[in-house]
Amino acid sequence: MDLKNMIREVPDFPTKGIGFKDITTLLKDQDALRYTSNRIVQEFRGKNITKVLGIESRGFILGGLLAYELNAGFVPVRKKGKLPAETLSESYQLEYGTDSIEIHRDALSPDDVVLIHDDLLATGGTTNAVLSLVKKVGVSVIYLSFICDLSFIKNEFKENLEVYKPHSLVSY
Amino acid sequence: MDLKNMIREVPDFPTKGIGFKDITTLLKDQDALRYTSNRIVQEFRGKNITKVLGIESRGFILGGLLAYELNAGFVPVRKKGKLPAETLSESYQLEYGTDSIEIHRDALSPDDVVLIHDDLLATGGTTNAVLSLVKKVGVSVIYLSFICDLSFIKNEFKENLEVYKPHSLVSY
Repeated sequence: MDLKNMIREVPDFPTKGIGFKDITTLLKDQDALRYTSNRIVQEFRGKNITKVLGIESRGFILGGLLAYELNAGFVPVRKKGKLPAETLSESYQLEYGTDSIEIHRDALSPDDVVLIHDDLLATGGTTNAVLSLVKKVGVSVIYLSFICDLSFIKNEFKENLEVYKPHSLVSY
Repeated sequence: MDLKNMIREVPDFPTKGIGFKDITTLLKDQDALRYTSNRIVQEFRGKNITKVLGIESRGFILGGLLAYELNAGFVPVRKKGKLPAETLSESYQLEYGTDSIEIHRDALSPDDVVLIHDDLLATGGTTNAVLSLVKKVGVSVIYLSFICDLSFIKNEFKENLEVYKPHSLVSY
């Protein structure tokens, strides 16, 4: 299945000049959803993953599914102020200003094997912040999974990620 | 498995006096995640569900998983302005002011069999708004799934839902 055909490109969203990669057309198709999930599960099965981290909010959609299929637990990475118990927080740069993401302080232990999942790898800024959070806990075995990679975006964040060999199914 | 033991209650979140039901302690436990998902899938297997609607953002976590296991497609219900293509929108009342939720206009067709999933049924306000959206498209077969139901909250929204026999695993 050519997944690129299942992903809709919406012009000028969220701002003029951006061609937004809309995965909702893939998700609503039961065969494409199944094929996409199975491909990712095949890649990471046998790696003894104990926790899948999904990045709010599109990373939650396959994140729960990957955790289930890999027989791991699921941990949400959320925007600041959304998680109710004690959190670890990490700031990252946006085009204008900064934002923060959080995980619960008791969500991970150092011996966890972690798979970080999001739908799209764009600038790599969020993923780098999640990596910092996971390393703060002392986790040393970390994998990265995305549906799409905007590989035409090149910067120092994405260079940082190279050592983790980010896995994606569709490259633009 | 007693799922209530897996759900953490966080006092005074998001505001003083509220005991927040925190499902992240359930989700991060691989056995509890598996048990919870399997119970919901058992309930809805054989009902020919074609689309699972997950409500942003905690409803995405099991929503994608349920779609996969039920061999259905997944449709995200999102806050206003998050979906990139043409949407259908529905407003609902908050304690102060109103909010809106949206689905893509092309996400559903009238012959779809729809399962709406969220983690928690509280006032029923959001669920009623999602029901309105789904009915606007002409869908007639609709099921409701939650992990938890705050059954001590009683109001006209929740009475409206009774005809759909909302399914939940944990009742407070």
